[in-house]
Amino acid sequence: MKITSVKITPVAVPDVPLLNTKGVHGRVFLRAVIEVETDTGLVGLGEAYGAKRTLAGLQATAPTLTGLDPYNLRDLRARVEAALPNGGGVNAPTALADHQVIDVVYSAFEIACLDLRGKEVGRPLHDLLGGAVRREIPFGGYLFFKYATLPDAIGPDIFGEVITPDAMVEQARALIDEYGFKSLKLKGGVLEPDLEIETMLKLREAFPDHGLRIDPMGAWTVPTAKRVADALDGVLEYLEDPVRGMDAMAELSAQIDMPLATNLVVVEFEQVIEAVKKDAVQIVLSDHHYWRGATGAIHLGEMCRAAGLGVSQHSNSHLGISLAAMCHVAAATPNLTYDSDTHYPWYAHEIVKGGRPNFVDGKLPVPEGPGLGVELDHDAVAKLHQIYLDQQVIDRDDTDEMLKHVPDYVRKVPRW
Amino acid sequence: MKITSVKITPVAVPDVPLLNTKGVHGRVFLRAVIEVETDTGLVGLGEAYGAKRTLAGLQATAPTLTGLDPYNLRDLRARVEAALPNGGGVNAPTALADHQVIDVVYSAFEIACLDLRGKEVGRPLHDLLGGAVRREIPFGGYLFFKYATLPDAIGPDIFGEVITPDAMVEQARALIDEYGFKSLKLKGGVLEPDLEIETMLKLREAFPDHGLRIDPMGAWTVPTAKRVADALDGVLEYLEDPVRGMDAMAELSAQIDMPLATNLVVVEFEQVIEAVKKDAVQIVLSDHHYWRGATGAIHLGEMCRAAGLGVSQHSNSHLGISLAAMCHVAAATPNLTYDSDTHYPWYAHEIVKGGRPNFVDGKLPVPEGPGLGVELDHDAVAKLHQIYLDQQVIDRDDTDEMLKHVPDYVRKVPRW
Ligand SMILES: [Mg+2]
Ligand SMILES: [Mg+2]
Repeated sequence: MKITSVKITPVAVPDVPLLNTKGVHGRVFLRAVIEVETDTGLVGLGEAYGAKRTLAGLQATAPTLTGLDPYNLRDLRARVEAALPNGGGVNAPTALADHQVIDVVYSAFEIACLDLRGKEVGRPLHDLLGGAVRREIPFGGYLFFKYATLPDAIGPDIFGEVITPDAMVEQARALIDEYGFKSLKLKGGVLEPDLEIETMLKLREAFPDHGLRIDPMGAWTVPTAKRVADALDGVLEYLEDPVRGMDAMAELSAQIDMPLATNLVVVEFEQVIEAVKKDAVQIVLSDHHYWRGATGAIHLGEMCRAAGLGVSQHSNSHLGISLAAMCHVAAATPNLTYDSDTHYPWYAHEIVKGGRPNFVDGKLPVPEGPGLGVELDHDAVAKLHQIYLDQQVIDRDDTDEMLKHVPDYVRKVPRW
Repeated sequence: MKITSVKITPVAVPDVPLLNTKGVHGRVFLRAVIEVETDTGLVGLGEAYGAKRTLAGLQATAPTLTGLDPYNLRDLRARVEAALPNGGGVNAPTALADHQVIDVVYSAFEIACLDLRGKEVGRPLHDLLGGAVRREIPFGGYLFFKYATLPDAIGPDIFGEVITPDAMVEQARALIDEYGFKSLKLKGGVLEPDLEIETMLKLREAFPDHGLRIDPMGAWTVPTAKRVADALDGVLEYLEDPVRGMDAMAELSAQIDMPLATNLVVVEFEQVIEAVKKDAVQIVLSDHHYWRGATGAIHLGEMCRAAGLGVSQHSNSHLGISLAAMCHVAAATPNLTYDSDTHYPWYAHEIVKGGRPNFVDGKLPVPEGPGLGVELDHDAVAKLHQIYLDQQVIDRDDTDEMLKHVPDYVRKVPRW
């Protein structure tokens, strides 16, 4: 089996104004849909970030994959590195962490290669990752403070404005009612820390048995984070990226018992080692989009086991190809014992046949069809590609978006 | 594809009196040949240590594998753990390092499962490990001080007695002439350190372009090892296990620039982390027999890359199934940049069809047939199994063997 051609389709998906410490989501989020064709007639699917640096990396690499054997992931890596000699990061300059374009592009094509291999041999992707240890993947409800949509919104406003602790409890209740989530994660760093502490305490009161987390994305100084950790002692499963940078995380970690999780200071394998040496974090968030694909995510799980670190799973806004890949990775990562993050409730579209899957008790069944176990709905892709063409949004910059809501907004990390 | 039955055949292979710091090889070495049958008619091969603790572990696990899907390596692991609830080590009490029976048994069956998967899909095993980065595997000449064989020897004496530096140079020359090796490793810790220094310097003089290593298996104190390292500064690629224990390695490492390698203090993934924290070693020896199979060996390579450690490959006395597996692992481990160890020149038998492969310039081509790419020669297995039955040797104990040559021998590690 050899790759004969690669098709990259950028799509824009209607989004709502979800707040985080660097700004707010714009009216669409961007993804790239990947179709890898082979001389056997099989087509492998992938899904990547769709903002301009990733898209350019995918497009520069795609033609160099002709002739690649989908089994040879090391040849894939070499081709990606050769196609992107200048490397660099994929995120907007305002992002808090960056991912190497080489890792992100490799990861996207790796999933497509694994999808092809699974399809060829009639095996679900998790079988190519060493086998499943679970057949249902638990996800958590991802809570966001948010504005109401602006007049230029494309889709409906989901849950409306939410900028108080009490409104957040109602958002959580609505998510739980609809999806059955058993845990809740608040994207923090948006309101004053005391209001976010109040929010978590009210969530605890309303949902006494749910796992709770908060992720302010580095919005706090070490003393502020210490104060929050003390106030929420016994309330949280973990505290995610409370402070900015590896050394600040290590400084905080030495002062508190609450486990610290991260998807900002540990995003490359070398940083797992650094984090262990500095005892900076206790839980690392996996994500096949930048941890060198699904095989890299499995490797991360093994490394964390050896290092005594826990594993959780990170989410960006995504569609059903990525959702399927997340399920396969979670199924085949024995020590991924926390409910996975997902932005899935925050949009209404889907690009895989059969449409949006049905969460039961917060869980999704792992796809058991060959490869990823999903097929592309080409009409749905075409529709979202048209939105991409119409909207002319080619990058993500949450800080820039924030100025549309708050004209005098000034970004500051840490803010408190 | 499901496993229907597992056959374990212990074999004894004529060996010669190779010396090491804990004693000497006996007249045979022991291996276990594994044949895993499936409902598709395919048979997967494996090869493990054959001494009594491993053999008992293989035999206790074998019947519990009925119904196992060879793709589900995590189910394999769970079955091995369930079959061996008491765990324990596989080596004789006199061994310097031990390997967990669960890891060793898992590893042996994992290779057979990968062999089955490769055969089913018509792919060489390295394709299931992420693909090959090299198609020829360089091995080094493994030099041993040795006695002449005892009267109870079964096979011919290869190279006769070698207990002086000058005789070792001749042994090296003979090995290089026959196999074309480009590097040489001396099993040290046998003669006085000054004689072993002299040996390495004479090897350097005789073979100015060969990579050189010495492995005294913990025979030296830290001051002695420091003295040897100083005397051989610029002469060695690395110094392997000069001192005993992680902390002694760290103490020595802080005093010298020469890289330290190990297959004694880092034999489990948790110990990679410990070694990094203590800066105890710079190179870890891979070995699919105990690093949780071929997938574990690949994972070790990735961990070492992240940790900035080098990777080499360890050998026990072995036959052609293990040799093939070593080639696949080496092909698919990008940072395995040192020539691999092998005991292959020290015996004359083979159990795979086609007999002993031909080393050219010290290298072997990676098998490109499906799975391991080797087939079993059942007549050869039967012959070596008969030797196993006749010889009544069921364990390896080099110290016990030594008493046959030196009746007043006393084992001591470190000795100097
Ligand atoms: Mg986060
Ligand atoms: Mg050694």
